[in-house]
Amino acid sequence: MKAMTTLGRAIYIREPGKPEVLEERPYSVRAPGASEVRVAIQAAGLNRADCLQRRGLYPAPKGTVQDVPGLEYAGHIAEVGSGVTGWNVGDPVMGIASGGAMATEIVVHERLLVPIPVGMDVASAAGIPEVFFTVYDALFRQASVSIGQTVLIHAAGSGIGTAAGQLVHAAGARAIGSSRSPHKVERARQAGFDDVVLVRDGSFADAVRTRCERGVDVVLDTVGAAYFQENLRSLCQGGHLLVIGLLGGQKAEISLAQLLQKRARVSGSVLRSRPHEEKAMLTQAFVRDVLPLLARRTVEPVIQEVMPMRDIAEAHRRLEANEVYGKLVLSWSA
Amino acid sequence: MKAMTTLGRAIYIREPGKPEVLEERPYSVRAPGASEVRVAIQAAGLNRADCLQRRGLYPAPKGTVQDVPGLEYAGHIAEVGSGVTGWNVGDPVMGIASGGAMATEIVVHERLLVPIPVGMDVASAAGIPEVFFTVYDALFRQASVSIGQTVLIHAAGSGIGTAAGQLVHAAGARAIGSSRSPHKVERARQAGFDDVVLVRDGSFADAVRTRCERGVDVVLDTVGAAYFQENLRSLCQGGHLLVIGLLGGQKAEISLAQLLQKRARVSGSVLRSRPHEEKAMLTQAFVRDVLPLLARRTVEPVIQEVMPMRDIAEAHRRLEANEVYGKLVLSWSA
Repeated sequence: MKAMTTLGRAIYIREPGKPEVLEERPYSVRAPGASEVRVAIQAAGLNRADCLQRRGLYPAPKGTVQDVPGLEYAGHIAEVGSGVTGWNVGDPVMGIASGGAMATEIVVHERLLVPIPVGMDVASAAGIPEVFFTVYDALFRQASVSIGQTVLIHAAGSGIGTAAGQLVHAAGARAIGSSRSPHKVERARQAGFDDVVLVRDGSFADAVRTRCERGVDVVLDTVGAAYFQENLRSLCQGGHLLVIGLLGGQKAEISLAQLLQKRARVSGSVLRSRPHEEKAMLTQAFVRDVLPLLARRTVEPVIQEVMPMRDIAEAHRRLEANEVYGKLVLSWSA
Repeated sequence: MKAMTTLGRAIYIREPGKPEVLEERPYSVRAPGASEVRVAIQAAGLNRADCLQRRGLYPAPKGTVQDVPGLEYAGHIAEVGSGVTGWNVGDPVMGIASGGAMATEIVVHERLLVPIPVGMDVASAAGIPEVFFTVYDALFRQASVSIGQTVLIHAAGSGIGTAAGQLVHAAGARAIGSSRSPHKVERARQAGFDDVVLVRDGSFADAVRTRCERGVDVVLDTVGAAYFQENLRSLCQGGHLLVIGLLGGQKAEISLAQLLQKRARVSGSVLRSRPHEEKAMLTQAFVRDVLPLLARRTVEPVIQEVMPMRDIAEAHRRLEANEVYGKLVLSWSA
């Protein structure tokens, strides 16, 4: 295998700004090194982080392509580097990336790959990695959610929300969703949440307490500051607030007296900035614990629409307008 | 065994106020019920919580005597209730209480008792339970401190600080203490902390980073709001801030962005308000994990002075004036 570059296409962020700054241009990747593979990407899932990166608010970690967004992809293995075991050219795979997934090619370490279950179409698979990895890591590896517990999941209709509701349910725990949209509340109720509360003027703790008097064991939060006090109020004794997003701001006042009295825990988590080896470990754990549930359709990605990659700007607009239920996927072949 | 009351003496809080509100008066306890024992208390350790309770700021939990303070005691078993196994009249014991330890008698469940190691004097033992239980639970059962980690321990010269420094050291981890007093910094250095930083104008994170560049794994904090930002700055990636006291206030601003970037955890903990069964479990775990270290003097209570119980008001004054290194113990026989 010679170290030749492969020419492809990618979505670039020309400069920080509105969706119009996104443009498709030629893109080249190096040949896979030892233990690496090159994946020919068919489709990539869109995430809020892509929009933040486009606006200049969430730069890619060092060592990652800086101006090509995209945190998850699905496609087929196009080339394998030396010493790669267990993968062959043509295998359908998906995975997370710290950037560069909105391209036709990506070179990744083989331990970061997840096989796409038999019978699942590749475009749908592109909507799995980022939200299912994030939720699995946060709720099960960090918060140890298990049978009988109650979990409050904000933005029930988001990619994170739809994945979390299903995984919590699959674990024998109770999923209470929240949404600011009556329409999404209704849809989430039908989609398998045990209950869904409507957030009015940023308030939800009273509504949660009506449904779970002692408070919930875990809150999975993508909102941050705007929900912080209500999140702590919603927790039970010994409960755990996991903040994984800051769409509602980042500076909050914390009552440490409340934290002590409740013996509560607040933690923050992000996937993107973690070192390679942690991502590889998470990937392997995901293959063991969650992939079987996806393979037998106990849990499924909720895909609002697979759009052509040329409509990437429109996809950003829809996501930022909160018009999406579940995930948008961008496909090079749609 | 008939259900007779036993007459003794206790320190009462006459009304919320200064140390002068403390007064010794007759006190009666009921006979021990099934699985309970009556302990004749010889000495009780003084804690900050006693001072807060005296000032009317920290009421005893429901079901606990309201106007007799005292969270830890040591003495001898005076009477056993029906079904008590493993204890005999005369056994030297110590334990935590949710109140009522500043008395000559206490009735407690047998699973809340810890045997006093052979050769240890009872008055010294009275300074063990509250701080060693609290530190053991916080650092080892909650934060899982282990070999090679670095722990920042505020108020290195306090009862909590002196216990924490020794236990962290015994676990093969590195203890960095802090104090606002140059005198206590010096003393803590000699007392086995690996390093001690002087807190100047509420700042310590830079000094901590000089000694542990990547940041500490765990912060054990009894100060609260006044140290909150510096505590987060002192943490490493994935670090854990454990707040177990609020001597420096309770309302703080939290940067959730920092929490996410660090993937840090903040948790609050108190012992006093926990249900009986949790305290019994903690007691049993303490007997298994920490008592052997106390028995062979790997760790020892640091007792500044054993004072006569009649000097309880003076003891409160000294503790509140930050004049104490380690613990003050009040003894009925001193």
